[in-house]
Order: sequence, then structure tokens, then C-alpha cells
Amino acid sequence: MNRFVVPADAKSWISVDPMSDFPIQNLPFGLAAPKGRNEAVVVAIGDQALDLQALQAAGLIDEEEYPILDSFIELTGERLSRLRQAVFDLLVDSNRALRDNKKARERAFIPLDKANLQVPIPPPAFVDFYSGIHHASNVGKMFRPDHPPLLPNYRWIPIGYNGRASSVYPSGEGVVRPKGQVKSAGDEPPTWGPTLEMDFELEMGFYVSHGQDPGKRITTTAAEDHMLGLVIVNDWSARDVQRWEYQPLGPFLAKSFGTTVSPWIVTLDALEPFRIKGMDQEPPPLPYLRNHGSPHFDIELEVWIQSVKMSKPQLLSRSNMKYLYWSLAQQLAHQTSNGTPVEFGDLYATGTISGPEEGTYGSMLELTWRGQQPITLDETGETRRFLEDGDMVTMKAYAQSDGFRIGFGACTGTVQPALT
Amino acid sequence: MNRFVVPADAKSWISVDPMSDFPIQNLPFGLAAPKGRNEAVVVAIGDQALDLQALQAAGLIDEEEYPILDSFIELTGERLSRLRQAVFDLLVDSNRALRDNKKARERAFIPLDKANLQVPIPPPAFVDFYSGIHHASNVGKMFRPDHPPLLPNYRWIPIGYNGRASSVYPSGEGVVRPKGQVKSAGDEPPTWGPTLEMDFELEMGFYVSHGQDPGKRITTTAAEDHMLGLVIVNDWSARDVQRWEYQPLGPFLAKSFGTTVSPWIVTLDALEPFRIKGMDQEPPPLPYLRNHGSPHFDIELEVWIQSVKMSKPQLLSRSNMKYLYWSLAQQLAHQTSNGTPVEFGDLYATGTISGPEEGTYGSMLELTWRGQQPITLDETGETRRFLEDGDMVTMKAYAQSDGFRIGFGACTGTVQPALT
Repeated sequence: MNRFVVPADAKSWISVDPMSDFPIQNLPFGLAAPKGRNEAVVVAIGDQALDLQALQAAGLIDEEEYPILDSFIELTGERLSRLRQAVFDLLVDSNRALRDNKKARERAFIPLDKANLQVPIPPPAFVDFYSGIHHASNVGKMFRPDHPPLLPNYRWIPIGYNGRASSVYPSGEGVVRPKGQVKSAGDEPPTWGPTLEMDFELEMGFYVSHGQDPGKRITTTAAEDHMLGLVIVNDWSARDVQRWEYQPLGPFLAKSFGTTVSPWIVTLDALEPFRIKGMDQEPPPLPYLRNHGSPHFDIELEVWIQSVKMSKPQLLSRSNMKYLYWSLAQQLAHQTSNGTPVEFGDLYATGTISGPEEGTYGSMLELTWRGQQPITLDETGETRRFLEDGDMVTMKAYAQSDGFRIGFGACTGTVQPALT
Repeated sequence: MNRFVVPADAKSWISVDPMSDFPIQNLPFGLAAPKGRNEAVVVAIGDQALDLQALQAAGLIDEEEYPILDSFIELTGERLSRLRQAVFDLLVDSNRALRDNKKARERAFIPLDKANLQVPIPPPAFVDFYSGIHHASNVGKMFRPDHPPLLPNYRWIPIGYNGRASSVYPSGEGVVRPKGQVKSAGDEPPTWGPTLEMDFELEMGFYVSHGQDPGKRITTTAAEDHMLGLVIVNDWSARDVQRWEYQPLGPFLAKSFGTTVSPWIVTLDALEPFRIKGMDQEPPPLPYLRNHGSPHFDIELEVWIQSVKMSKPQLLSRSNMKYLYWSLAQQLAHQTSNGTPVEFGDLYATGTISGPEEGTYGSMLELTWRGQQPITLDETGETRRFLEDGDMVTMKAYAQSDGFRIGFGACTGTVQPALT
């Protein structure tokens, strides 16, 4: 597939702050539902969202070529790439078609803070992998201290499990502290109540564009052509519930209560300049999982926390997408290797992406090492083993180049008290 | 909720064989797609499917009261119950409205073998529980021989996991033998190819009618009012793939390639006379999981197998739904206990239902005890450790009363060779 990479020196006639997540090199897609208007696919540029339906109404984007842009339906990766190029053409500084059309401009631009961004695509299926090798090692060290940190299958299989698609929420929506069954050590019976170990998980995810039929597979070579782009994923977790329930069929209610995704689908086209080979895989994967080219991405990841008492967020962790052992292409190839049909809009998350050392971990579980090393919130002196009610967790992701940044915006959620 | 129980001595003006699954006491709902006609919700009676849209067109079922009956959408359990009563009124021997309307009758009745029955509702979510205690014990004995067969959480939590909704197939559709990664004992690296341990799982499942919002739960008392009814579920499995992949996040590709459901949603109204208290739960469940009344059902279950060489199927196993440790109401209450939203059409399966002794097990894994005790197919002398290509597996379920049987029809699937 031909990818459209915006030249590094391209400029828009829209003024964009050099630290903005959304320069003309990015042009990610989202779904806006601004007050008093219909839902529409939008593209971010600077601090504005550009309504593509309004551009169609003004005759600036072909209505024949693209479906009604009130959702992403029918947009394959290739069509999305061409659509992105059409938007680029309207925004680049040499083009006056939109710039000089005041009426169209007024209808098409929505300030980001008024866009009311939604989950870009409510996913029919949500799968969560476990491809962050440092995270898997840390969990192994904590829960199986007498064994090697990684299970024997880890370097052979992109381990994953089916998550819950009905509880994927947009950035900004509160997440209610779940109740669940927990068991303390000893002979006491388990109890049921609000989780005491509410956690986040720092992940990235990709949306599937066109799917695959039952019985057929998508190869690692073809996999990226089936992806619309990437989002940040926070897969909220209840660690005490997880410990008690997860044997033998895996995590269930400890994860199913909520997953927050960031609002912008950042295309692989925009991330093309940030490709890397990624970490070596040893032993080499079986042929059906073999990587090609540079299948990983150098994307900085950050987690911020702000308690109710704090006036501004504090940086909690800094990681990078390069710490994935299994590439996105390997994940999708594995998912379909048994003939499972995948569909437009399916969301596949990477699993928690932790870096190799303290301060780069992607969950409270690791950052506080099971709560044994509480974190201090500098501004207020509060401490945290896990998340408290009112804590706002914000994840950010960006690829930084000389002169511009390809950012994902924020993936934010605030812990709400358990319902009575 | 008021349930409509058809009197045991009620008769229809349609003649029904006493051994039929579909007497007037049953009246289950399905989705037909007969050649040259639109999809329509149908009700089974004897060897006929009754097209409810045709009845609406003839003015025999209220179009105001019920939505367009080309799918189950908007049918809560209560509305479905009233609709079933309306169909009963048209079929009972004393009523002549349909019986004497030749034109309506000709349009409304479809022979079952021409109905082309579909998955009744393509489920937005598919969850598989593990509530068959004899199955869980058998698996424990095989895979953890040095430990108690049941894990410590089994009698406290209705263990379950998220399955794959995109691969739920109708009865009669072939299931392609999946490829997957398997690992033999010893130091050899794993290999990737067609599973050598293709298996079925004998399960029942319930469809959700009206769902529940995020953050709220459905109590055990209310749970059955959220169910449309029951179906047979065959959750095909690849045991060699499962053994290698399932640690630590549970079964994934070993199960996601296919799940077959039977075509008829049998209502709880029809099953009312077959309620039982079920097995004792010790220790008593936590309050949020407490059962009420008689939450289990006495439903006979059968598995039949027919190889390519055989002229008729052979009975492989005979079990009963009473061998569930956790009731359906407990499953749904647990599912929503952490605030996970559930939706119309969600499918919740029970897990494999094995009886307590040999010959009553719900999977090849147990029937042949990991392949160590192959089964002989009497007609041809063939043996089976697991399923071979061309094997047709048929599951049946029925509740037997004096004079009538509430049956589910057949849940059938044939193993297709792996694709090259």
C-alpha cells in the first residue's frame, strides 16, 4: 500500500504551535459530536477540528469517492490514506480553496475544546495482547518469584485474550470504581466490595480497517494494510479482583468494567518517519510470525496523575512504544492465524508497555511494586499505592522529530466512587 | 415478570408428533432466511416454522405492539412472552382465525427443512462460563494431578472469560479445523499447523433481552427477567493449542475459531415446568450471588457423532443441565457485579456440562481422558481420540414431561479440513 508522508518542511496556512500534537504532518482522524450538530468525522490541525462533512457540503471533498462521513464505516486503510491526502491539500499553505472560502471555513472548523470527541469507532471486538516484555517480566517476578519471570511460551506466542468491547469509553469519561470479589491470604472467606487496588494500564492499540473472512488469515506482510491507525488505550484494572479470579481462564471482571481510548486515530502514514526495527527476537519467531522491515515505532509515552487536591498533574511514568516485544503486525497475524474472522473497527491493544527501569513502568502495580513502595504526590504530600477516588489519570503519546511532533492528544479518565 | 405456561393438555390444530421437540407447549423463536424470502422471526410448531411477519401482514399479530419482526431487536423478555402467548392463541385447537384462513396459512408456514435457520441473534458479546463442576474437576485431574481437582476460587466465583463473538456460527455450518501453535514435551521448539486435538464442548447458553447500563448491576433476583431464552452451544476447541497458549491470560485462539449455536431460542416460559433446585452450593455463595427459588433446569443433553463412513450417528454422551454448579442467574449477576454494561443479544454460555461418570462427559478430552482411552465407532470400527475431518457432531437438548417434550432442535457442525 502507498503511504502518504507529509514532507517535514510542509506548512499549513493555519498557524500551529511547534509543540502542538497536531501539525500538518499528523492529520489524525476523530469522531466529533459538537453541541447542536451531527456527529462527524474530523481531522485535527493545531487547536482545531476540521469537520469533513462540512467540507463535503462545500464541495471541497468528493462526495462520490467517500461515504457519508458521519462515521468511519467503509473507510479502508487505503481510502483513509487518500482522504488524509485530500485534507492535506486543503490545509497546505499554497492552497487557497478553503483558506479563501470564509463560509466553508466557518462551518468546517470547530475549536478542539468544543468538539466533544467520541470513541472513534465503538469496537465490535476488543482484544488485549501482552506484548510489553518488561511488564510481563515484572508481573512474573511479583506473582511467581520462584520461577523465571517469563513463562516458556512468552517468546513464541504473542499472548493475548479477549477483552470486553461494551465498556470501551471515550477519553474524559469517568470510570466507576468496580466492585468485585477479593480474597486475602489465610483462611478467611472472600469478600465482595469496591476494589482496593484500582490501577491503570498504559497501552497502545490499533483499529482494523478491512477485516478477513472466517478460515482465512492475514499475514505479517499484509497486516499493516488492514490497520486504520493507532490510539492510546488505558485498560483499567482491579488488581485484587484479578489475583483471585484469573485462574484458570484469565482476567475477566478485573478488566471488563472499563477501557478508555484516546480520541484520535493517528495513521501509520503519519508515523512512517518514526519506524524502527525494535528489539531483537530470540528465538526467531516461527515463519507465520516473522517480521518484515521496521515494524515497530519510536513513540514516547507518558502517564500523569492529578488528585482532587492537586492544582496540576504530576508526571508518573515515561515509557516508549519501542518496548514491545511483539509488533502490531505480529499481533494481527497471530489473531487471524487460526481463521478467526476479524472485522472493521476491531480494536487490538498491545498490553501494558513498561520500560526497563523504575519510573518507566506502565501500571501502579509495577510503579509501587504491588503497593510496597508508595508514590508521593509532590504538591500535596499525598501517597498512592493504587488509585484513589477522584484521581485523574492522563496518558500521552507522541513521536518527536526535529521541528514537529506527531501527537495523540490525551487519554484521560477520572476514578469515580463505587456506586452503593 | 409474569410467565406464560401453556397447559400440559393443550393441543394445536396442527398435528404434532408426540416425540417432536416442538409441541404447542414449547413455541420457541428462531430467525429464518428461506430462499426467495426476507429474513423473519419464526416460531417452531411440529415440523413447521411459522413466519411472524406473514402473520402481521395478515393482521393476525398486532403491528402496533410489536416491531418489524425481521429480527429480535426491541424484544424484551416480557414482550417476547406476550408475543408467544399471541402465537399460542392462533395455534390452539379452539381458535379458527389462522386455521380457517387458507391464504394466511400458505404464506405463514414454512417446512422446517426449508427454513434456512440462522444464528438467532449475532451476539455483540459472547462470554463463556465454567459452571459445569464435573468438567472443571476432570480438567483439574488431568492437568494438575498433584493438586485438588478444583481451584480454591471455583466454589466462590462463577469463573468465566470473554469469548469471540465474531465466530458464532449457525447450526449446520462447517467448522474449519484451525491451525495453531503447539508444543510437545521436551526441548523441541513449538510448531505451527492444523490442530491434532480438535474437540467439541457441550454447553447451554442464554441470550440477554434488555441490558444494563455501565456501573449498574443485575441482581440474581432480576437476572431471569433479562433473558430471552436458552440455546445449545458447541464451543469448539483445539486442546493442543490451548495447553500451550493459555498461561497466564486464559484460552484465546484455541477457542476463538468457531462456536456453533442451535437455531431456536427456547423461552424460560416453556421451561418453567422443568425447574429444579439444582445441586447444593457449599460454602454458601456470597450475598450478591445468592440463588432464589429453583434456578436450575432439568434438561437432558446428548452428543452424537457421525464419521464420513458411517450411515447414521452414534450416541457419544448423555448429560443433563442439572450438573451446573452455578445457575444462569448467578452467571449474569456475577457478569454485571462490577458494572460491566450488558446489551441486547449478548450470549452467555455455561461452560461444558459433564455428568459425574464416564459416558456423561461433554468433551472428547474427558470422554477419551486426554486421548488415552480412544472411543470406538461401532458401525465402522473406527476409533477416535479427538475429532477427525468430516466428523459431524450433533448436540441435542430436551426436557421430557408426560406426554410432551420441550426440545431445542439440533446443534450440528461438521469438521472441515484445515485450509492450506
